[in-house]
Amino acid sequence: MIINIPANSDFSIHNIPFGIFSTKDRSPRAGVAIGDHILDLAAVAELDVFNFNTAVLERSDLNDFIALGKEITSKVRTDIQAWLQDDNSVLANKPELFVLQTEAQMHMPVCVGDYTDFYSSIEHATNVGKMFRDPENALLPNWKHIPVGYHGRASSIVVSGQPIHRPKGQTLPKDATQPVFGPTQRLDFELEMAFIVGKNTQMGDTIATSEAEDYIFGLVLFNDWSARDIQKWEYVPLGPFLAKNFASSISPWIVTLEALDQFRVQGPTQEPKVLPYLEYEGTKNYDINLEVSLTPENGEETTICQSNFKYMYWNMTQQLAHHTINGCNVHVGDMMASGTISGKDENSYGSMLELAWMGTKPVQLKDGTERKFIHDGDTVTMRGYAEKEGKRVGFGKVSTKVLPTK
Amino acid sequence: MIINIPANSDFSIHNIPFGIFSTKDRSPRAGVAIGDHILDLAAVAELDVFNFNTAVLERSDLNDFIALGKEITSKVRTDIQAWLQDDNSVLANKPELFVLQTEAQMHMPVCVGDYTDFYSSIEHATNVGKMFRDPENALLPNWKHIPVGYHGRASSIVVSGQPIHRPKGQTLPKDATQPVFGPTQRLDFELEMAFIVGKNTQMGDTIATSEAEDYIFGLVLFNDWSARDIQKWEYVPLGPFLAKNFASSISPWIVTLEALDQFRVQGPTQEPKVLPYLEYEGTKNYDINLEVSLTPENGEETTICQSNFKYMYWNMTQQLAHHTINGCNVHVGDMMASGTISGKDENSYGSMLELAWMGTKPVQLKDGTERKFIHDGDTVTMRGYAEKEGKRVGFGKVSTKVLPTK
Repeated sequence: MIINIPANSDFSIHNIPFGIFSTKDRSPRAGVAIGDHILDLAAVAELDVFNFNTAVLERSDLNDFIALGKEITSKVRTDIQAWLQDDNSVLANKPELFVLQTEAQMHMPVCVGDYTDFYSSIEHATNVGKMFRDPENALLPNWKHIPVGYHGRASSIVVSGQPIHRPKGQTLPKDATQPVFGPTQRLDFELEMAFIVGKNTQMGDTIATSEAEDYIFGLVLFNDWSARDIQKWEYVPLGPFLAKNFASSISPWIVTLEALDQFRVQGPTQEPKVLPYLEYEGTKNYDINLEVSLTPENGEETTICQSNFKYMYWNMTQQLAHHTINGCNVHVGDMMASGTISGKDENSYGSMLELAWMGTKPVQLKDGTERKFIHDGDTVTMRGYAEKEGKRVGFGKVSTKVLPTK
Repeated sequence: MIINIPANSDFSIHNIPFGIFSTKDRSPRAGVAIGDHILDLAAVAELDVFNFNTAVLERSDLNDFIALGKEITSKVRTDIQAWLQDDNSVLANKPELFVLQTEAQMHMPVCVGDYTDFYSSIEHATNVGKMFRDPENALLPNWKHIPVGYHGRASSIVVSGQPIHRPKGQTLPKDATQPVFGPTQRLDFELEMAFIVGKNTQMGDTIATSEAEDYIFGLVLFNDWSARDIQKWEYVPLGPFLAKNFASSISPWIVTLEALDQFRVQGPTQEPKVLPYLEYEGTKNYDINLEVSLTPENGEETTICQSNFKYMYWNMTQQLAHHTINGCNVHVGDMMASGTISGKDENSYGSMLELAWMGTKPVQLKDGTERKFIHDGDTVTMRGYAEKEGKRVGFGKVSTKVLPTK
């Protein structure tokens, strides 16, 4: 190995995720994470080792690189894996190609054209249904037939490290008939993962579940910030709007589908049987450990949720097949989030709403305080990794501090 | 006048709308419509008459031009108005600057980052509430407090002339418990107008109603295609998704807010009183005549709806103030549609759903056939214009043919 990779690093030789970074002396460009370092792909390109137009590696997003197609992007990844393990490779004895992650700033890895949020965890949908609607009929009639989704706001997706402001908005106090205005009192996170579309379709085209993986470049961790009191008042009949669109936060490194291949697992049984266009073959879920922590201002970090991406009822190939079955076109860089990933256990619930059960069971923190929802000054951090037979492929983290209303 | 402008043209000297066009010999670039012609702005720029970087006029969208700000874009418009009326101006005796609209192809005028659809006609919201929910309580409790809106799909917004395919999807037949799959049986249009954002905000920023017009570059006609049977089955609880995102169609010319200034009218009284951030001063509605026609394959055109943009309960400044009150950022090129524009009279309803009242009152066409919803081969055309004291400012049309399922 021509660079030291700490044991247990998310960014092992098996990973090689792509991102956009900048340094003091050079503007945003493409890189891959390896151990504690970033391999500067724009600099590697200058060695003339790539067989494509490497101008795409100097852009401030990965869209044009991803659009080259998996034949090229996959080869870049496997070439890098080989080079890093070969002491005589083109990367050897060139420390200038490697930047310490602590000395780089990460940026949004893609320019997101359209962002879609699904609602694909049966445990989350059931929990929310119990709290907001009818405990006896928590799951709506369409839920097991449709990978329910809705469009979100692309402009306000930001990368880990960028703080967000507590949003203001309208809410309807309990037993009131007139709404009031002010900062949300129920700021929440949602633990999600999102995939990035890697290939365009034309309007009218559909993507079958069997070919959907060709259209998925890779995944990131996704925090779908939510304001529950605003959501409750606004969401009927056209869905969440201001309760969600003030911010979503993602982890900066896109872990490719290839890197996750060895972590495939069977998804839950789908009963009743889904319509033919949603049927799929093979193992399409992924065993990715997920956790959420909360760190109060100047305080200690407490892990408050441990979940897993494998719990998803609807998998990504079904989401993409559904999204395009009506001919809706998708573009490289589009982001599609899973919806909150909750498991069966109470500590696996992927939002404060569920963890503290609408404020009735406050979450205890190590510093002795408790939380029903998120306070100003709190930092919410999500981490994720897959591990099997000593091979670890991780996502790093998405970590976001909440600032007071601007 | 150095070019002939037919009487009653939508594109009078008072209008000067901006768009993107191409010709056989030259790729997409900026132009303004005048009478039956297009004034080629990229060609005008070569005369060295503009005081800004005219490279923005050679792009395939207007985003960078609009981003220059109203100080510049408004001056371009008023300069052109002056030049066209001056027989000795820089444009005189230069027929090569003018392209016949019949010899040009129009393109999407902007690259749409995010698209939002509002629901701001009280007549439409009431009609839909009666049909889909409770006739006695048609308007939901939040409707008069919130300019209800939701995010739509930006990728599938297309320009007039581009045909669309009938979408397929899941629907739940009457009295059935299991959904079925197939082409929508209830394809519908929605008569809307949309404004284009002309100025960026940062996350956390809000736009007051008093300053909102600075952020609105101009308007287009907007046909929000809808599949009512898909919508009914999917939209609870997160709103419309596949029922809408297969296509929206717009008119190609962006009519500036300045051109519409003289057509301002008072909006409806808002009772109960809105929250302070939604209060506004002045006349913020616009008297714009709207109509929809339907032309069967090889058949005669029938006007089926006559409405007016002035009916909107919530105006654009309120929509923008609401959209940003939580700090959601907006970008140049974002598109925000009004929601279906229905009036009080039955012939002013802005969708087939309402015109044919859920299929119970079929719409009669001149060729003797009738429609409950839109058939394959039908062309739906929307037109709009404002007129006062002999001055006419029009939008041209958005005309779209429906093709069978692909």
